[in-house]
Amino acid sequence: MYVERLQRVRERMAALDVDVLLLSVGADLPWLTGYEAMPLERLTMLVLPSTGDTSLVIPRLEAPRVEPRDDLFEIVPWDETDDPVALVGRLAGRPRSVAIGDQSWARFVLGLQATLPQARFRMASEVTSSLRMVKDEGEVQALRAAARAVDAIAIEMRDRPFAGRTEAQVHQELVERMLDAGHQRANFAIVASGPNGASPHHEPGSRVIERGDVVLCDFGGTMQHYCSDITRMFVVGEVDREVREAYTVLVEAQERAVQAAVVGTPCEDVDASARKVLADAALGEHFIHRTGHGIGVEAHEDPYVVAGNTTPLAPGHAFSIEPGVYLPGRFGLRLEDIVVATPTGPERLNLAPRDLAVVD
Amino acid sequence: MYVERLQRVRERMAALDVDVLLLSVGADLPWLTGYEAMPLERLTMLVLPSTGDTSLVIPRLEAPRVEPRDDLFEIVPWDETDDPVALVGRLAGRPRSVAIGDQSWARFVLGLQATLPQARFRMASEVTSSLRMVKDEGEVQALRAAARAVDAIAIEMRDRPFAGRTEAQVHQELVERMLDAGHQRANFAIVASGPNGASPHHEPGSRVIERGDVVLCDFGGTMQHYCSDITRMFVVGEVDREVREAYTVLVEAQERAVQAAVVGTPCEDVDASARKVLADAALGEHFIHRTGHGIGVEAHEDPYVVAGNTTPLAPGHAFSIEPGVYLPGRFGLRLEDIVVATPTGPERLNLAPRDLAVVD
Repeated sequence: MYVERLQRVRERMAALDVDVLLLSVGADLPWLTGYEAMPLERLTMLVLPSTGDTSLVIPRLEAPRVEPRDDLFEIVPWDETDDPVALVGRLAGRPRSVAIGDQSWARFVLGLQATLPQARFRMASEVTSSLRMVKDEGEVQALRAAARAVDAIAIEMRDRPFAGRTEAQVHQELVERMLDAGHQRANFAIVASGPNGASPHHEPGSRVIERGDVVLCDFGGTMQHYCSDITRMFVVGEVDREVREAYTVLVEAQERAVQAAVVGTPCEDVDASARKVLADAALGEHFIHRTGHGIGVEAHEDPYVVAGNTTPLAPGHAFSIEPGVYLPGRFGLRLEDIVVATPTGPERLNLAPRDLAVVD
Repeated sequence: MYVERLQRVRERMAALDVDVLLLSVGADLPWLTGYEAMPLERLTMLVLPSTGDTSLVIPRLEAPRVEPRDDLFEIVPWDETDDPVALVGRLAGRPRSVAIGDQSWARFVLGLQATLPQARFRMASEVTSSLRMVKDEGEVQALRAAARAVDAIAIEMRDRPFAGRTEAQVHQELVERMLDAGHQRANFAIVASGPNGASPHHEPGSRVIERGDVVLCDFGGTMQHYCSDITRMFVVGEVDREVREAYTVLVEAQERAVQAAVVGTPCEDVDASARKVLADAALGEHFIHRTGHGIGVEAHEDPYVVAGNTTPLAPGHAFSIEPGVYLPGRFGLRLEDIVVATPTGPERLNLAPRDLAVVD
């Protein structure tokens, strides 16, 4: 698999006239080699020239963590008193065009620019994004398995008590359930209750959930290298009429966007279809973010389902559809599933019930 | 506190002829403002000109998370279809010299370089590092509290069973204990048993710990914004003679380095003092990493205790002293405390017993 990906990356480098690809922290490196760089001040970097040998430059003390893959790269360890930027520069040769991992640290970007002054730097995603965006059957299967794992958690939460617990406690439960369900890592678990729900990326805190609260749970992690991401809504005890009405519109908006996600449709049209339903119900101004993001080895990646993105959907594109309604000081609502575009239409990977779950 | 830090940063910018400081992900931003940027594709960036108003550019959906600080910055939210790089470029004016956060993502560095073609880019650490390195009494107090919290865990672990549990299970226990002890975040918890100990950054896995194993536990997190980091060694049941002898040398090496950490001594001399003890015992080749790293709002920061770093220690410098011995295929040993340089000599912040703890 990695050998085949490497081959496709090299073909794309040739087409784009990129002489060397430099990958450090971020998802490109594990997607391409299975190895994930530690986000540390000690540089780990794959040096992949368009032709010739590939090197994985790595701190010597991390070398034991690397599974040797002679078919992919040679391990080039550096010692504590070596200069890893100079080492990468030597291995890169005299490139005119360098593509560097989008999340590489500024200190290494600036160092490499000084070391390779003749080179033009561009983003590695120009090389990798179009390849990573299209998931093959094995990747869709991994995304499906991760989705089903968080589906099961969303269903279990319907029978759990919410009132009297803090957001932080429910957050912790979600994290533990993701790990128990086979995720190697919990990436996030937003629990936003009552007025906190109006902050889309609310950090779960000490607020005690109480009767009448609307509670937004948005959680996901990484399982077999691929990500999950789901949002479901819970209400404690009785449901306010305004909440129920807004949620009914939101379910419709999400459904329309999912149905719009057919091969060939531009991403921005999928976004617009959710937005229209909310606008028609006079809720448009409260939907303050894009409709979705691509998902794969990274929790957020191309394609983004957002106004201005004219990329047409292709078979194997995987992305979230997650419209929301946020009323500052009062409550927030969001509904999110992962969807894959297929030749026979959109496939929802998440199957947990999408109603407003009433909990204790 | 933040107002005073901002003032000192501006003075240093003036001295270095830096026109604007741009801070995104990484520890400089929370150190300077209390706000931590989410590591996402949506740009959050503080734009701090050497004179004039400071702006916090932030995705609109994250704006509710920011505690307004009119004395520090103006919040400038951007919408999903805006170009945040162009926005930062406009707020930056026409700088000749830009200092950008060391961990800023390459995609934003390259975008800003294209937007501000007349500017020379350098690392923000040139501005902030010398300021962050020297901890005031409040910061030392926070580091001390974090150290005492993990000390208590290291002591508790002496009475816990190890044999029959996997590394991953002990890892999970350490993470939970750090959170229970008041850490807002567990940053890492290395549990490396038997031959896995020879990999300094071993990822805890499915290996079941057994009688006779040497187990390295290196764990730390963030508490009240400041980091903890401690390594202690455990042996299950009986202790091998070679392990005991090597550990005795290691304790001596660590003690010598701590004692060497007096104000005015270059960092590299502290490193050399640990290295000499191990070399004299013919263990030098098995000590494959630097002696330590600075610690503060970041788990690893300046000053690094490493050959080649001639920075003399100053009062308020805080750093780890953690020599190790790694025998591939057999075992690994490390002993780590956090130390602060003070006018009256080195202060160890960690006080948990440093002997080889015998556990079941």
